[in-house]
Amino acid sequence: MKVITLLTDFGDYYPGVMKGVILTLSPEARIVDITHSIEPQNVFQGAFLLYHSYKYFRNAVHVAVVDPGVGTERKAVVVESKNYFFVGPDNGILYPSAIEDRIKAVYSIKEEISEQVGELSTTFHGRDIFAPAAAMVANGDYSYLEEFEDGELKKLELFDYSVSDDKVRCRIVYVDRFGNIVTNLREERGKGFYFNGIEFPLVKTYSDVDKGEPLSLIGSFGTLELSVREGSAAEMLGIKRGGGWIELEVL
Amino acid sequence: MKVITLLTDFGDYYPGVMKGVILTLSPEARIVDITHSIEPQNVFQGAFLLYHSYKYFRNAVHVAVVDPGVGTERKAVVVESKNYFFVGPDNGILYPSAIEDRIKAVYSIKEEISEQVGELSTTFHGRDIFAPAAAMVANGDYSYLEEFEDGELKKLELFDYSVSDDKVRCRIVYVDRFGNIVTNLREERGKGFYFNGIEFPLVKTYSDVDKGEPLSLIGSFGTLELSVREGSAAEMLGIKRGGGWIELEVL
Amino acid sequence: MKVITLLTDFGDYYPGVMKGVILTLSPEARIVDITHSIEPQNVFQGAFLLYHSYKYFRNAVHVAVVDPGVGTERKAVVVESKNYFFVGPDNGILYPSAIEDRIKAVYSIKEEISEQVGELSTTFHGRDIFAPAAAMVANGDYSYLEEFEDGELKKLELFDYSVSDDKVRCRIVYVDRFGNIVTNLREERGKGFYFNGIEFPLVKTYSDVDKGEPLSLIGSFGTLELSVREGSAAEMLGIKRGGGWIELEVL
Repeated sequence: MKVITLLTDFGDYYPGVMKGVILTLSPEARIVDITHSIEPQNVFQGAFLLYHSYKYFRNAVHVAVVDPGVGTERKAVVVESKNYFFVGPDNGILYPSAIEDRIKAVYSIKEEISEQVGELSTTFHGRDIFAPAAAMVANGDYSYLEEFEDGELKKLELFDYSVSDDKVRCRIVYVDRFGNIVTNLREERGKGFYFNGIEFPLVKTYSDVDKGEPLSLIGSFGTLELSVREGSAAEMLGIKRGGGWIELEVL
Repeated sequence: MKVITLLTDFGDYYPGVMKGVILTLSPEARIVDITHSIEPQNVFQGAFLLYHSYKYFRNAVHVAVVDPGVGTERKAVVVESKNYFFVGPDNGILYPSAIEDRIKAVYSIKEEISEQVGELSTTFHGRDIFAPAAAMVANGDYSYLEEFEDGELKKLELFDYSVSDDKVRCRIVYVDRFGNIVTNLREERGKGFYFNGIEFPLVKTYSDVDKGEPLSLIGSFGTLELSVREGSAAEMLGIKRGGGWIELEVL
Repeated sequence: MKVITLLTDFGDYYPGVMKGVILTLSPEARIVDITHSIEPQNVFQGAFLLYHSYKYFRNAVHVAVVDPGVGTERKAVVVESKNYFFVGPDNGILYPSAIEDRIKAVYSIKEEISEQVGELSTTFHGRDIFAPAAAMVANGDYSYLEEFEDGELKKLELFDYSVSDDKVRCRIVYVDRFGNIVTNLREERGKGFYFNGIEFPLVKTYSDVDKGEPLSLIGSFGTLELSVREGSAAEMLGIKRGGGWIELEVL
């Protein structure tokens, strides 16, 4: 039984169709949703969350589709790494994960694979290209793959922050359901951070501050998070989504 | 291994209970969520999304429950078509899919099937009627099915739009997570459409216009969609949900 | 094949990681989502929805994680009851279900179980503690479990309402996607209820009132719900979430 994971910005319905396509071509595949709530078109967030989930699986085919370039010339690729296959558009979303796990081979997916589905739209390659590719790779069938002629995968750097003695400039990557603001800063600095008039003391765990109080910590991603104990930092700061840069003063 | 798909307007929790009921009665069933985010009570949307997903599966039992008539005299039915079983209320939601796949037989589900669950509520037939019916049909067990006495399934016409030389009147069926406005118009007209003071030129793919620009195209449903490249047509037009009719001027 | 259910307030992404951990340790486990939309930190709601779902499964390992005390001294436990295993924090979330099904044994989970994942964060014990515990228990492997020294599970009383001849004081437990307001009142009273200037006549089924009209009924949880036929009681009353107490006048 082969695990195929799905990570997309598709929300509802579209992933269900992808599952139908996958199960039709690979009836024994085991499909696991990582998330379908990547912010629309936020390739960086997709790459970040894929990077922080792929390794918890064993021997999986990971499908990641956040694809603002659908219908353009961007390539659809399958990357074979040491322990996994990654399937998605060549826009950087697969890059950090595939590089970390060591790339063995890169293929592009022929558009003709859509014959297996019976349709080729210009807007839903999750259904027409990536789902059949994942199913067939899970089956060990490479018949619609060909040499990747672009030479190298499109790069994407997850940890592109800058630090100085008293400042940190980093990205907000993800605002989770609790209102934790997850950044890409992969190091502790000073005694905490000052942002938008609020102090976020650096602690080890939520309970190091009182309920309702702001804090910062290295969270489960291994990066800095701004949080409020049993509250929402996102609400406190008026930040609703990832994607932006923030500048924090180091305390 | 039999696939049972679920399409409902139940949101969260309720589908989990349905899965428990199904797995208790049919432990080998493979359950796939198509969506649980149909707009509350929007039978038309349910019928449309079922129609655009059922065929991507092979040999499945499709359960579709959008059921404003729960607790009334509306029948609960199982429809056997050429390749599938459809399970749901007889309110039109199953009709377009079942007709397209060719109906072989229609049964009504006896309320006594709720014995298998141990409960019969007046509000949650997804749990008490439809889930056990799907599980038992997947098992090849018809013991709670009986002749459908109403003669014919309730009809529902998905593509009930009207066109003239310079106007189109069609339905907004679905607003997806990207803010694409999916209509039920199954044909191209002119060079695009004019709606609410905005021109939506008819193109083949998103990248035919600049980022942030409106467009229209025949999308992955095979119907007209109003979109904004890497943006949200729903936001641009202030349209939040499906269900309404719109009149478009043909360019 | 063992069923492992998940009920959390994690929303998206985090449950996907838990599934990777579970499948790595117990590849044959069958994972079913009950919900990941428990209101953040609402332990009572988690306990209520677990109580109203666990029994629809057969022989499952039920994982329930709503865990405001993560990173504190609260124990992580496995409860073995007559028909199930329950895995989660010892904060009351498991208590009503485990008691009802008859507790046979309680264990605490050693933090060292996180070796199996390779990480121990202070914020995501769903990944580091509860997921591996569920997988290993499903495998029949108790090696990271030890005697529960706190003596008794933390209690939580789901049905803690008070009634008098003309008043009822109960909790709003859950506001579902339809805007039904689910309370914890487990009995019928009088001819209905008066709340916020609106009468909610007690009926048997939605269709006992006209469309758009308020009503109350004993719903699929076996408790009182305030509803609007084909509308939203939550919207009518301006109630957005569970957790609060309400006082209803009995009609």
